[in-house]
Amino acid sequence: MSDAKERIVAATRRLLEEEGAAAVSMRRIAAECQLSAMAPYWHFANRDALLEAVCASAFDEVAAQWRDRGRRADPRDDLLAAADLLLDFALARPRLYDYMFTAPRPGARQYPGDFADGRSPTLNLLIEALTDGMAKGALRPDDPVGVALTLAAQLHGLIALHHGGRIGLPDDDFRVLCHDNVRRIFDGIRA
Amino acid sequence: MSDAKERIVAATRRLLEEEGAAAVSMRRIAAECQLSAMAPYWHFANRDALLEAVCASAFDEVAAQWRDRGRRADPRDDLLAAADLLLDFALARPRLYDYMFTAPRPGARQYPGDFADGRSPTLNLLIEALTDGMAKGALRPDDPVGVALTLAAQLHGLIALHHGGRIGLPDDDFRVLCHDNVRRIFDGIRA
Repeated sequence: MSDAKERIVAATRRLLEEEGAAAVSMRRIAAECQLSAMAPYWHFANRDALLEAVCASAFDEVAAQWRDRGRRADPRDDLLAAADLLLDFALARPRLYDYMFTAPRPGARQYPGDFADGRSPTLNLLIEALTDGMAKGALRPDDPVGVALTLAAQLHGLIALHHGGRIGLPDDDFRVLCHDNVRRIFDGIRA
Repeated sequence: MSDAKERIVAATRRLLEEEGAAAVSMRRIAAECQLSAMAPYWHFANRDALLEAVCASAFDEVAAQWRDRGRRADPRDDLLAAADLLLDFALARPRLYDYMFTAPRPGARQYPGDFADGRSPTLNLLIEALTDGMAKGALRPDDPVGVALTLAAQLHGLIALHHGGRIGLPDDDFRVLCHDNVRRIFDGIRA
């Protein structure tokens, strides 16, 4: 990536994190980078394309962190470690998280097609861990993409409720609650 | 409730459903009801109090529908029936649902205190069904408030992802997906 392009992506990400997507305009980004008003258009067709580049690099970043941690022996520990990475991200960058995961955006990946086709760097790793756990006999045979969505939706639901003020817990206790919920899905609730 | 008060609540709910909370102002509601600009203040201290009354009546409505359906013999069927009621509501009234469940609002109930104290008409019924299922030995002994949150967060996560365009399924297939997810939590994912 050229130096100007990198600066544009970094400025957009900073603005997304600090003020949310509504604050991002091509004009404002140009001003933040001390470039001419048209300069962002040399690198990105429009605002959507610029925001998409920020999301793509943030998803890649989370996936890379997960890959760096390596695989746990117990698939449950693998899922808890993945949950922690997502929580680190969501708690530190609520506006960026919200834009990546739920704000309407043209390039958003959709369940099931995009995930079954391996288009998500983060969910690919989760699907791989689940497939592995099923192959080893630690997890019940099931559709790994469906199970990945169950886990992702559980964490997303908790994070959205937390960000919306519906969970009256400090971040550390909220993390314990998320772990409890992942374990509950692991074990099920029936006797 | 007085006739004017009922009309004010009904107009607010309609506006919330059609345009979202940002469109609701005391002035606009007065105009919709063909009342003087100050009339809403005779019944509600401010906009927050008016919106709170709409949420309270909507939560009561969902709870009453659930109570009317009666209890299923199998607790899993009970949970699926509850999920269907929530989905009916969320799919028909996405903006109202979003305001009730995640938009920042001063009167929003919080986990765990408000739910453990029985302050939610809807979650009370879910907690009761879970407590009953545990007493009958159909569900594993656990904290019913915690299990209720697991189920509520799962559905909320799926609904938020669906509303945000991350689930590329028509509503009927989305409902099947939600049922699959409730069953997956019921049975767990481990072998």
